[in-house]
Amino acid sequence: MSFDRLQEAIIAKKNPTVAGLDPKPEYVPAHIRKECYDKYGETLEGAAEAIYRFNCGLMDALKDIVPAVKPQSAYYERLGWRGMEVLERTIRYAKEQGLYVIADIKRGDIGSTAEAYSDGWLGKTKVGEQLLSVFDADCVTLNGYMGADSVNPFLKTCKELDKCAFILAKTSNPGSGELQNVPAGEGDTVYGLMADLIEKWGAGTEGKYGYTMAGAVAGATHPDELKQIRALVNSSRGIICAWQKTGKDGMDYQEAARNAAIAMRDDIARFTTIA
Amino acid sequence: MSFDRLQEAIIAKKNPTVAGLDPKPEYVPAHIRKECYDKYGETLEGAAEAIYRFNCGLMDALKDIVPAVKPQSAYYERLGWRGMEVLERTIRYAKEQGLYVIADIKRGDIGSTAEAYSDGWLGKTKVGEQLLSVFDADCVTLNGYMGADSVNPFLKTCKELDKCAFILAKTSNPGSGELQNVPAGEGDTVYGLMADLIEKWGAGTEGKYGYTMAGAVAGATHPDELKQIRALVNSSRGIICAWQKTGKDGMDYQEAARNAAIAMRDDIARFTTIA
Repeated sequence: MSFDRLQEAIIAKKNPTVAGLDPKPEYVPAHIRKECYDKYGETLEGAAEAIYRFNCGLMDALKDIVPAVKPQSAYYERLGWRGMEVLERTIRYAKEQGLYVIADIKRGDIGSTAEAYSDGWLGKTKVGEQLLSVFDADCVTLNGYMGADSVNPFLKTCKELDKCAFILAKTSNPGSGELQNVPAGEGDTVYGLMADLIEKWGAGTEGKYGYTMAGAVAGATHPDELKQIRALVNSSRGIICAWQKTGKDGMDYQEAARNAAIAMRDDIARFTTIA
Repeated sequence: MSFDRLQEAIIAKKNPTVAGLDPKPEYVPAHIRKECYDKYGETLEGAAEAIYRFNCGLMDALKDIVPAVKPQSAYYERLGWRGMEVLERTIRYAKEQGLYVIADIKRGDIGSTAEAYSDGWLGKTKVGEQLLSVFDADCVTLNGYMGADSVNPFLKTCKELDKCAFILAKTSNPGSGELQNVPAGEGDTVYGLMADLIEKWGAGTEGKYGYTMAGAVAGATHPDELKQIRALVNSSRGIICAWQKTGKDGMDYQEAARNAAIAMRDDIARFTTIA
């Protein structure tokens, strides 16, 4: 079961941190950018290639420290198809390094549209007589506002191909409460109802650690919340932009990322027990 | 104002129908598929190219009948970067034909991630000293579950570059009620709260027809609901797959799509008045 593999990687590395790969061109050290802009110009292609090289360097430095990476699709879509091509290559490279890949796409659509997303991100796409893998992530993030119709096509793929999904329940951004915290149902809140739906949708898909194929995303903003929720913590700029704080112009971006990931792992270990 | 341009196109064409461009390879007539598979193989490239040719043929046939097209991103993502490349070309072609383009992406994310999506889909992406247009749609669809943080970056771009957004309130799929219909707040429902938020987020951006830059998506499943909501109706397979019902193996796909769009326009005219 896909989440079992993630859990085993978390246990093996004693680390529940997911490294977010959310790169803007300006997060890439200047020497990598220069190589790519010299070759491809200040173009979407140049920026995409710079991001790919940066991602690979980061993953080389992090692969024995973190169990998973989470590329955020927005930063690749921002570069159009050039970015998506690099996202495909990034996911492939991550899996070759033994990293679990969560594609942070937060998709939420219904019926055959949800199927199309699921084909592309987790499953296979039929072309003529061929069944072709496309992004082929291990896991995606979803938005369940449209109900079971928006989640079931993904769960079908998850069951067929041993994949998983995280669905938003309570997010940790300042505006999350506008809808999510409103009292709803009988003594509940909108996010509480969503969490109940997620539990219902995932029922019967438990792996050996008790997690279902449909995980709930609940943002933890305080360390003492960590014990109550699934211990999976994302860090994006804290890791990938760590080089911006060492004063070495990014020549040390790998070492800086690795040190930041180790420090984070050790910090979390003070508040939570992984088993 | 972007929605004014859409409204004027609706009035000029006496038609509030949006043609959904949601193509799977099997929706493309066999003669177009054959050309592309002969040239590129049964590959993602071959499928993407077939879809591009189909899209262009459809738009040629529909451009004086419908005011807008709505490509659904899922069907392009399903083909990976090859699909996204074709989606970029499809949007460019649509705009060249004078069609208003709604990118149906239903994105919902926060802060700098929402900015990244907004850059890619509506705005411009900064690479070095360049500001580059990427997908450059006129309008996107959004999911506001995460609150204002997920919508404001798009509305900022809308104001700067004269674009618009539709945000999901009440969708028409069977499972939409699971969360959306639950009683919430004071005598309201989850979708009612969302509709109020959308109204609040869009306040002060009204164009000359009274629409704000933040439109609400409310699914109409019965013609008599049409009078109450913004008169914008989507048809995807009804138009693009119309050729499958004429028994001519898709050689008439343009005529079939055009006839279906005309019939739909005339049907809607019986229930609603456009002005």
